[in-house]
Amino acid sequence: MKIAVDAMGGDFAPQEIVKGIELARDRYEDIEFYLFGTESKVKPLVKNWERMTLVATTEVIEMGDEPVKAMRRKKDSSLVRAANAVKSGEADALFSAGNTGALLSSAIFIVGRIKGVDRPALATALPSFDGPNDQFVFMDLGANAENKPVHLYQYGILGSFYATHVLGFDNPRVRLLNNGAEEDKGDETHKVAHQLMKSTAAFNFLGNIESRELLEGTADVVVADGFSGNAALKATEGTALMLLKQMKKAILNSGLKGKIGGALLKPAFKEIQKKLDYNEAGGAIILGVKAPVVKTHGSAKASAVANTMGQIRIMIEHNLIPDIQDYVSKHHDDLQSVKADLQNESESK
Amino acid sequence: MKIAVDAMGGDFAPQEIVKGIELARDRYEDIEFYLFGTESKVKPLVKNWERMTLVATTEVIEMGDEPVKAMRRKKDSSLVRAANAVKSGEADALFSAGNTGALLSSAIFIVGRIKGVDRPALATALPSFDGPNDQFVFMDLGANAENKPVHLYQYGILGSFYATHVLGFDNPRVRLLNNGAEEDKGDETHKVAHQLMKSTAAFNFLGNIESRELLEGTADVVVADGFSGNAALKATEGTALMLLKQMKKAILNSGLKGKIGGALLKPAFKEIQKKLDYNEAGGAIILGVKAPVVKTHGSAKASAVANTMGQIRIMIEHNLIPDIQDYVSKHHDDLQSVKADLQNESESK
Repeated sequence: MKIAVDAMGGDFAPQEIVKGIELARDRYEDIEFYLFGTESKVKPLVKNWERMTLVATTEVIEMGDEPVKAMRRKKDSSLVRAANAVKSGEADALFSAGNTGALLSSAIFIVGRIKGVDRPALATALPSFDGPNDQFVFMDLGANAENKPVHLYQYGILGSFYATHVLGFDNPRVRLLNNGAEEDKGDETHKVAHQLMKSTAAFNFLGNIESRELLEGTADVVVADGFSGNAALKATEGTALMLLKQMKKAILNSGLKGKIGGALLKPAFKEIQKKLDYNEAGGAIILGVKAPVVKTHGSAKASAVANTMGQIRIMIEHNLIPDIQDYVSKHHDDLQSVKADLQNESESK
Repeated sequence: MKIAVDAMGGDFAPQEIVKGIELARDRYEDIEFYLFGTESKVKPLVKNWERMTLVATTEVIEMGDEPVKAMRRKKDSSLVRAANAVKSGEADALFSAGNTGALLSSAIFIVGRIKGVDRPALATALPSFDGPNDQFVFMDLGANAENKPVHLYQYGILGSFYATHVLGFDNPRVRLLNNGAEEDKGDETHKVAHQLMKSTAAFNFLGNIESRELLEGTADVVVADGFSGNAALKATEGTALMLLKQMKKAILNSGLKGKIGGALLKPAFKEIQKKLDYNEAGGAIILGVKAPVVKTHGSAKASAVANTMGQIRIMIEHNLIPDIQDYVSKHHDDLQSVKADLQNESESK
């Protein structure tokens, strides 16, 4: 399998990207890598060219660039060229640690949507602290600022597929992020989405979930509209980081007793921090496009990059995208009839 | 001043409510309390009737009751009767630890909206761990499942007033919860709200905030639409609770070393937990109605109830509601012109 790597995206690019890719190359013997990047910067970093090909590019999309514009104008950027390699079939998957919006645009407009999926979504795995599985799929995390009920319904299908084929969950429990447990909760979008999801046989829908329960392990897939999914994800991250910071501060400020206590508890806390550090477990995937397109945090170091390659490898090996395409095309008529029903209903109002 | 108390609302009602009110009565000499509740249950609990009046009611709105229906049908419930006492001017403020939806409905339909405020909002103070102030106002937390830009604009006014007059902040920094820092981020609602807030002189608007920063102290008032505000609040609460639970579990499971470490760090962690436990600091207030209407968590114990009375006392003493009414009525024409502009703009599209 072949992975197209945007070697120039990310806070520590290209150093940590190249280092991570070399780690992954040594770990996974069946992956070939195409490194897209500025020759003078990337070439000197590579120690061993086994299963590595440099594709020289002349432009770089920066973190602050306006995503769609940058994708359209910087045609010789490492990201756009890498996306084109996936489009043409030279590579099987796309990876970047750079500008999320530009990666999303490249995924949707260059790699292309799967026919039948209206709005691709950004998904990641977050830790579950209780429950039968140790993580869950959370989507959409902000690929869309607005969603319609049918998008949320489609996320149920996409998320369920990902949880089954990549995380190995059996009949994953899908829930809808809403502002209450009862089925009549939420705005019109969430009420209608709930009804669509409730009456489907396409996945195992167990009703609404409130964001208070996100980490409790009561769902394997949590479907959210992009706006509130983004808000809940960032609130979770922010709170976890702030709490860990405050704990450290409290330990440092509580004198010798605190410092001894902190030293004694270090291994226990490391464990929690590791579980929270989902960056280590891999990146966020854009679901609904014609190939695995994966993003890690801009601040990802080499080990996170290498782990993400492992995640992409599972997606390719387990045939995730062709399976999703098959499923969506088989159920294409159902999906269209769901959309037509919704259309009629809203017109008759 | 007089406070109407729903003595029957809450998981530990009426015991903890009555106990909390007696604490508050002893603490604040200028408050009189009307306890609305079932005579046979409330009467035996009161130890001292000084500045306490029992108003016997025969019905109770339960946690599971459908809010609007319950408010309409249970006319002799402790909550509805207490709300009516505020409406008629017999009491200055309303307190309940019961069904939030029913309290919201009672606030809006019985106590009544302030003229010029389209949608009252649920607001609370959350801790700020950095920055100049130790807490911030967060609203709307779910009074509304959908909001228009003009509602968010009005929340800026209401929140700014609350932060100034109740929390004592000088020229509070107002921010809009959005999915990115730049002003063109978000859905149409948030884009338009940003423009309204940016061009107002009614409060000190400093732009968007992402929920990752909520606890960092970079805002004194965070305005959100009810749906994503609810999602961000509950994600914050859920993450904090889960992390503290995991810390405790890690300490218990890490043998003698961990237990000693845990004991040594107990005071330091207590401090953080106290800061997080915003229940102790008071309840959530419904802003935009004609009197202070305040809710504490259903699980509130006596001390939280008593602290909430202190919070209500400050609102009455500082003339919060009349000041808001004055301000909104003075700026009523501006508000109407903002609404008319929006209307015209959306029609011309």
